[in-house]
Amino acid sequence: MIVIMQAGATAKQISAVIARIEEIGLKAHLSEGQERTIIGVVGDERKFGDRDTLALLDGVERTMRVSHPYKLASREFHPADTLVPLNGSQVGAKKVVVIAGPCSVESREQIIETACAVKEAGATALRGGAYKPRSSPYSFQGLGEEGLEYLAEARQVTGLPIVTEVMEPGLVPLVCKYADVLQIGARNMQNFPLLNAAGESQHTVLLKRGPANTMEELLMAAEYILSHGNNRLMLCERGIRTFETYTRNTFDLNAIPVLKARSHLPVIADPSHATGKWEYVGAAAKAAIAAGADGVIMEVHMNPEKAMSDGAQSLRPEKFAQLVKEMRRVAEAVDREM
Amino acid sequence: MIVIMQAGATAKQISAVIARIEEIGLKAHLSEGQERTIIGVVGDERKFGDRDTLALLDGVERTMRVSHPYKLASREFHPADTLVPLNGSQVGAKKVVVIAGPCSVESREQIIETACAVKEAGATALRGGAYKPRSSPYSFQGLGEEGLEYLAEARQVTGLPIVTEVMEPGLVPLVCKYADVLQIGARNMQNFPLLNAAGESQHTVLLKRGPANTMEELLMAAEYILSHGNNRLMLCERGIRTFETYTRNTFDLNAIPVLKARSHLPVIADPSHATGKWEYVGAAAKAAIAAGADGVIMEVHMNPEKAMSDGAQSLRPEKFAQLVKEMRRVAEAVDREM
Amino acid sequence: MIVIMQAGATAKQISAVIARIEEIGLKAHLSEGQERTIIGVVGDERKFGDRDTLALLDGVERTMRVSHPYKLASREFHPADTLVPLNGSQVGAKKVVVIAGPCSVESREQIIETACAVKEAGATALRGGAYKPRSSPYSFQGLGEEGLEYLAEARQVTGLPIVTEVMEPGLVPLVCKYADVLQIGARNMQNFPLLNAAGESQHTVLLKRGPANTMEELLMAAEYILSHGNNRLMLCERGIRTFETYTRNTFDLNAIPVLKARSHLPVIADPSHATGKWEYVGAAAKAAIAAGADGVIMEVHMNPEKAMSDGAQSLRPEKFAQLVKEMRRVAEAVDREM
Amino acid sequence: MIVIMQAGATAKQISAVIARIEEIGLKAHLSEGQERTIIGVVGDERKFGDRDTLALLDGVERTMRVSHPYKLASREFHPADTLVPLNGSQVGAKKVVVIAGPCSVESREQIIETACAVKEAGATALRGGAYKPRSSPYSFQGLGEEGLEYLAEARQVTGLPIVTEVMEPGLVPLVCKYADVLQIGARNMQNFPLLNAAGESQHTVLLKRGPANTMEELLMAAEYILSHGNNRLMLCERGIRTFETYTRNTFDLNAIPVLKARSHLPVIADPSHATGKWEYVGAAAKAAIAAGADGVIMEVHMNPEKAMSDGAQSLRPEKFAQLVKEMRRVAEAVDREM
Repeated sequence: MIVIMQAGATAKQISAVIARIEEIGLKAHLSEGQERTIIGVVGDERKFGDRDTLALLDGVERTMRVSHPYKLASREFHPADTLVPLNGSQVGAKKVVVIAGPCSVESREQIIETACAVKEAGATALRGGAYKPRSSPYSFQGLGEEGLEYLAEARQVTGLPIVTEVMEPGLVPLVCKYADVLQIGARNMQNFPLLNAAGESQHTVLLKRGPANTMEELLMAAEYILSHGNNRLMLCERGIRTFETYTRNTFDLNAIPVLKARSHLPVIADPSHATGKWEYVGAAAKAAIAAGADGVIMEVHMNPEKAMSDGAQSLRPEKFAQLVKEMRRVAEAVDREM
Repeated sequence: MIVIMQAGATAKQISAVIARIEEIGLKAHLSEGQERTIIGVVGDERKFGDRDTLALLDGVERTMRVSHPYKLASREFHPADTLVPLNGSQVGAKKVVVIAGPCSVESREQIIETACAVKEAGATALRGGAYKPRSSPYSFQGLGEEGLEYLAEARQVTGLPIVTEVMEPGLVPLVCKYADVLQIGARNMQNFPLLNAAGESQHTVLLKRGPANTMEELLMAAEYILSHGNNRLMLCERGIRTFETYTRNTFDLNAIPVLKARSHLPVIADPSHATGKWEYVGAAAKAAIAAGADGVIMEVHMNPEKAMSDGAQSLRPEKFAQLVKEMRRVAEAVDREM
Repeated sequence: MIVIMQAGATAKQISAVIARIEEIGLKAHLSEGQERTIIGVVGDERKFGDRDTLALLDGVERTMRVSHPYKLASREFHPADTLVPLNGSQVGAKKVVVIAGPCSVESREQIIETACAVKEAGATALRGGAYKPRSSPYSFQGLGEEGLEYLAEARQVTGLPIVTEVMEPGLVPLVCKYADVLQIGARNMQNFPLLNAAGESQHTVLLKRGPANTMEELLMAAEYILSHGNNRLMLCERGIRTFETYTRNTFDLNAIPVLKARSHLPVIADPSHATGKWEYVGAAAKAAIAAGADGVIMEVHMNPEKAMSDGAQSLRPEKFAQLVKEMRRVAEAVDREM
Repeated sequence: MIVIMQAGATAKQISAVIARIEEIGLKAHLSEGQERTIIGVVGDERKFGDRDTLALLDGVERTMRVSHPYKLASREFHPADTLVPLNGSQVGAKKVVVIAGPCSVESREQIIETACAVKEAGATALRGGAYKPRSSPYSFQGLGEEGLEYLAEARQVTGLPIVTEVMEPGLVPLVCKYADVLQIGARNMQNFPLLNAAGESQHTVLLKRGPANTMEELLMAAEYILSHGNNRLMLCERGIRTFETYTRNTFDLNAIPVLKARSHLPVIADPSHATGKWEYVGAAAKAAIAAGADGVIMEVHMNPEKAMSDGAQSLRPEKFAQLVKEMRRVAEAVDREM
């Protein structure tokens, strides 16, 4: 951390800052500028937690962090790509994975039929929600454990591993019984008890970026999971909230190369939520792969206009199958496979 | 709901839309425009949940909601102000309440000393966190139940009711044992299992707006709590996330009159989080009262530069006491009391 | 400026950075941290302009600015409040000024009638647009010079000084002939040729913050005007663009105390644009005054439902007159006058 | 337009709305819902301009637009792709164009050397700024007409057409003398006098989306230019401003397929500004092409660490040459050429 003293800070004020730094167990390094004095804090500034209280001492103009607040998630700390096993592939390696399925599990038939269709088209894993976070208490809330059972049955039929959301710490053990990958949804990215429970479970986790969270906050959330020794973790960019309202979210394409550069974790893109409209999903999916995504997760429904959620952003199986072919060509153009 | 057909939609496409509407159990009302046909949906469109799937039918350009997605929280449904009892006052009535205390409970002495100081200055209730949501796993996470016990002791000493945060459904019963008001933090505004647990508890709730949630989403979150028959509910504007980085958040002052107009629930402002810097808390607090807030919640610390969290936005007791006097003058200028 | 070297930067890389700093004519100050080396740049970093090119040198992780990029607009440079004369008052002194009038000048009768009404109610100055920035080429674009003549006539009748917008450098001389205060609209906050022309004019300027500009960028825009020796300048907060769509803009209330703290220039609030709906203008106006605004600018129309622009956010004269009374009470509660 | 009456609006209020609609010269179409009455406005609602004043009539809850506010820019009005000639190619046809060069023209040698390098690497046109919009008055402002002369010389040497920015209406004739394509920068997207001057010039225009403007506002700005009969127009997505600060802007990838779907105009992507860091330019550029962009514009500098502006986001010629090869592969994977 660096402490910028106000122009005209007194020697007494400067000494007080130094004393405070040493009190926390760090060393201070003085640098007399022309306009103002700057004090460098030598040592692990994570000791400050988020207590940026040096800024409150008299004569301090402001403080600036030097090192990132996360460590385990950083490439600096872990230079090699982390590879996460999924259905025989390694997410983060050369092959780009495709996770597909309906937003919600609506019935036994629906999920099995969809599972077969996406497998046929080349999906690596099956997605489907049994517990649904819904803005409205009047919306379909998911089938719960019944939905998990249907997912397990769909896995039996197709061999596809299951990616499904868990919304509360108390349900992590139950969902782990059925799911291959725990999805932590965007609205729960900073649900810290849930992050801790997912970390402790040692289960594979797909962590979605919150719609209003920075990439740094996403990596801090990942840090929670990693801090439990669980590194079977994938990050997911699914669009952020901005002033633009024509699309459901704004796909932060930049997040793909940035997260790959700053972290060793695999990065998955969710073009369905990132656009909110099926007609733009293909363009966003191909863009994500061109930008270096390790996989895509997308919504596929046999009959979108009857979907109980997210129908507007769901692809029909035949459109999905066509898109897989197009994505494969793009993957090959950037020296990946699908 | 209104369905806008594309210019040049066919009679067959129009009939398909009408058929779908009737299938859901609603009535369709046709209106032939010059450029395009518009179909009004007659009946309770909440039946759609968020299934905006009519938009997927051939020939449909887009659909538009007519009624609000929330009901119990709306003034249309409940015209009279809801009054929430707190320490002998009615939040939402003429008196503007002041909830004050440290961000975190750090020790028995700290919370009792602070409680006495804020009571002395005229606070209505004591705030203090025992369970802390922290971006970093390396930051102080709160004292947990020990913190709740200190809060209860502070209440015994001062008579001030306790406002404290609960972060997971499983802890709602425990926190209810100690707290007078359950605070649902901004990051949990859409933690639906937590909203349901808080609703079921029938305990008084302070629901904070998420940093990236619209006022409508806040009212939908309130709807979750109200749908359990729990209307001892206060809304809280605490600043939203925008591109402006000089302040910690952007205080959405407009939310105060808008929420008062659209809903019957009391509205509290949190100038500490809305600004993130103690030197601006006073201006924001007075503004909130001038705009019609029913109360303010603010952070007060005996020794901000040693606070374990949010020191930068915490007021010293003497500054807080002075601010209460200033807020009172503004309250009187808008025909309220403090 | 501070240069953060990567952990493991080589001595050679460090020397190259130092060499580059000296080449620009500044001094380098080395500070060896535990994790990494930090190089402080001693001297006026404004020499860098925005050329943050040190960040490109090998071994550099990133650079951080120390001093603000603006100078003339800063309180550090000019501690005393700048007072701007307007109709016999000093904007920035104890009296809170009220600038009122229609969005657009629509006719001779309309502007004169409105001018009389707002004067009667206690306005300090008359606003009205002759040149209108409109999102749509099909919207009313203003009466141009004819509108300026009507404004001048309204001034003759009422004695109120005229605040009106200028949109292009070429028209600054013409608008100066008629206007007492040149308004630079939000969409032109970074129209640098216009800022230069307004600065050169030595005319009083009301500079509106752009809907997506930070406070720092506003102060940089002010710097353009001040750099021509023109300090008859008022800043205006009129709401920023965020994800919230219920109101036209999000009123950044924080900007009022922050701009007052960082700059010596008077700060005016525009509650009409900040809310976009007349029913919320009063709450926002009173809040602005409670937060320390030096004045308000608001839209008043004799017949809002027939206004050619911004009808939805315009107050009728009787509502405006009532609001002036309410604002006066709030002003007095914060030791100001109106 | 559709007018939603409040639940419980009176017959008298409804008639008043109908009367007002007919007064404007449009027809009203009544539709009695269960909860409320809805009035459809039949006819060209553009007659309203942005005068959404129906919303002010008693008993009206709100109004909703049905048709887009733009016409000439819409695909509905002009279904076929507009092709814009540039250096023998047609922008918008199969070939993806590449516009490259420095942010600013810094010297005769610099621009000629860079022009040769980008041509060698396969660029279609040369970019370079002679007039620079700079946040700071202390930053390099460009060489002005001298810079234009150097650009013309670079064209003579390389045959590459020139894309350069114009910042004020008064300079449009001068810049047209030298430039093949007038660039309207992001900060000027709603500089309406400039849009009109560019439209009247009948010169080819590259219109950049403002950092806080919606796609709809971009199409409205395009409408200004098209309304002068000038359809030699290209749209450019260059990143928007959001809460994410790690990158200079947030690249709104969605805008590429959306603008292609809603408009007939070619869409160019600017990965340099969209990321702000050279190391991410390649990923964003390939993504843009995979998403369907008709071209890219990017910054190339012989010596980025000495660039007078935007050095951090500029590619060295050799990196640019390599990127062209990679972009070509992606273009071919989506059935385009480069």
